[in-house]
Amino acid sequence: MAARRPGEFALIERYFRPLASDPGAFGLTDDAALYRPRAGEELVLTTDLLAAGIHFFADDPPDLIARKALRVNLSDLAAKGAEPVGYLLALALPGDWTEAWIRRFAAGLAADQKQYGISLLGGDTSRASGGLTIAVTAIGRVPKGTMPRRAGAKAGEAVFVSGTVGDGALGLRVRSGALSPNPRAAKFLRDRYLVPEPRLALAPVVRRFATSAMDVSDGLVGDLAHICEVSGVTAVVHADRVPLSPAAKAALAADPALQSLILNGGDDYEILATVPPKSAAAYAAAANAAGVPVTQIGEILAGKGPPSVIGAGGKPIVLAAASHTHF
Amino acid sequence: MAARRPGEFALIERYFRPLASDPGAFGLTDDAALYRPRAGEELVLTTDLLAAGIHFFADDPPDLIARKALRVNLSDLAAKGAEPVGYLLALALPGDWTEAWIRRFAAGLAADQKQYGISLLGGDTSRASGGLTIAVTAIGRVPKGTMPRRAGAKAGEAVFVSGTVGDGALGLRVRSGALSPNPRAAKFLRDRYLVPEPRLALAPVVRRFATSAMDVSDGLVGDLAHICEVSGVTAVVHADRVPLSPAAKAALAADPALQSLILNGGDDYEILATVPPKSAAAYAAAANAAGVPVTQIGEILAGKGPPSVIGAGGKPIVLAAASHTHF
Repeated sequence: MAARRPGEFALIERYFRPLASDPGAFGLTDDAALYRPRAGEELVLTTDLLAAGIHFFADDPPDLIARKALRVNLSDLAAKGAEPVGYLLALALPGDWTEAWIRRFAAGLAADQKQYGISLLGGDTSRASGGLTIAVTAIGRVPKGTMPRRAGAKAGEAVFVSGTVGDGALGLRVRSGALSPNPRAAKFLRDRYLVPEPRLALAPVVRRFATSAMDVSDGLVGDLAHICEVSGVTAVVHADRVPLSPAAKAALAADPALQSLILNGGDDYEILATVPPKSAAAYAAAANAAGVPVTQIGEILAGKGPPSVIGAGGKPIVLAAASHTHF
Repeated sequence: MAARRPGEFALIERYFRPLASDPGAFGLTDDAALYRPRAGEELVLTTDLLAAGIHFFADDPPDLIARKALRVNLSDLAAKGAEPVGYLLALALPGDWTEAWIRRFAAGLAADQKQYGISLLGGDTSRASGGLTIAVTAIGRVPKGTMPRRAGAKAGEAVFVSGTVGDGALGLRVRSGALSPNPRAAKFLRDRYLVPEPRLALAPVVRRFATSAMDVSDGLVGDLAHICEVSGVTAVVHADRVPLSPAAKAALAADPALQSLILNGGDDYEILATVPPKSAAAYAAAANAAGVPVTQIGEILAGKGPPSVIGAGGKPIVLAAASHTHF
């Protein structure tokens, strides 16, 4: 079997060179990529590593693994208000890789490159020390001085989140067999887990209005705690205002103990942002116009410490689990 | 044991935040790093992944593993004539990692950051799917339009290589017990394998004189074949002009069969460059002045195909093994 597989150079030429559409990628025939910055722009750089058995299942569809690896990075760019430019891909393949698997993996990248208007800029291919491991470094650009930081939230500001929360964490439960909703809900949740949607359409709106922003990857409440910590503030989250998909609502109605998982399970890849109260309506309107609904879920408060979560009638809610990590 | 180890956030705060000296790294408290390009510069981007059991031994000293992971990337920047700016680090840790190991790993990075004047810009830490895996993306800068490509070599040009060739491949043999020279030579070769020296001092000279350049990582002759292929030329390498360290010379004298390993074993991280004949003496002089000796080992010839290797008296030499890959 192994003898029939292409070597590293043939693999790159056949499947990855076609992805290197940017002239600065030199068709992956050089040691490095070249990027010529435009006047007045700053570059936003982020890296995320995904490993089989940790961030995805080794038998997930290869095109979806590829898209997830790319999209979790694009989600970071979106939260920083950046327009994506391209990415570098370091790929470590397990001993039993097949050409068919690589073909589907590259097809997933190609589809997302087309969707988001980006190019593969460079990469490295190697054998893995264990299972499949994918490290992506994504590069985006913002007009000088416009990138929202995590630090920047001020008391009195509105806390917004995009889309719906909890689907990814519930989808992982569905994927692992721990949760069995009706087939339609199961498919919706599993898809949200497998292929997150980076909110790039929201990037210009975030850049314009947000005083702080980040993407929700480790869990809504835990990630808001990060914003609070670096901004030197605290916050309150109204649990009943957190936007849920119909599938998540149904799951929560069937099992109220899922609330902690929904509010802090992670894998949401939605954008959490703080906005001055006078801009809150304009932020929501601009987000809607960009096709990404946002919901105000709480407020930033003076003080320090992790956010409080309250239910209907102001009753405090204690979350069952800490912020999710892949560690 | 595991319970005594710091969590991901504590680990980052304790060991990696001190490495994020660049203000654009935000002390690793944000989702992404910000880089503000200077007027007239272009960015050079490269990524290399190293995995335990493939590129290094899991029980190699952690500071040296860290330095190697960083340096193989800096070597790519040097070959592209770039000044290093910083790097992003994606680190996947095996289940049995210890805090003491991380401390030494970070100390290795700190030492090299100081030596090369660079900063950690961002990163990701995760559990590994198997052994330790390290993906580094390095960022460098060049004045606009000055980066030497691999494509660009022309018939009649001189082929130069920096430093000495073969030490890394011989060092791997020493490290794995397959070669046992005297202790002093053993230490020299092993060190060359464990901690390559990125030829950053040569970068401005390469930028000024080279028509094509790359770093020798897969093997001298195989890498020159890459230059020939993308430049549409061929070349001749005079085996007896290839610069060898005293340790490599002694190993070759003791076992002439090592010639293929020396000429094409890889892990050299020296700079291979082509230079017009009229600039050859000036290139060598400028390199010497920069503290990195270079040696002319051959010429670019009209035609196509991989380089010929000839010995004393013009006798053709057929290399035993193909260009080395970690695949």
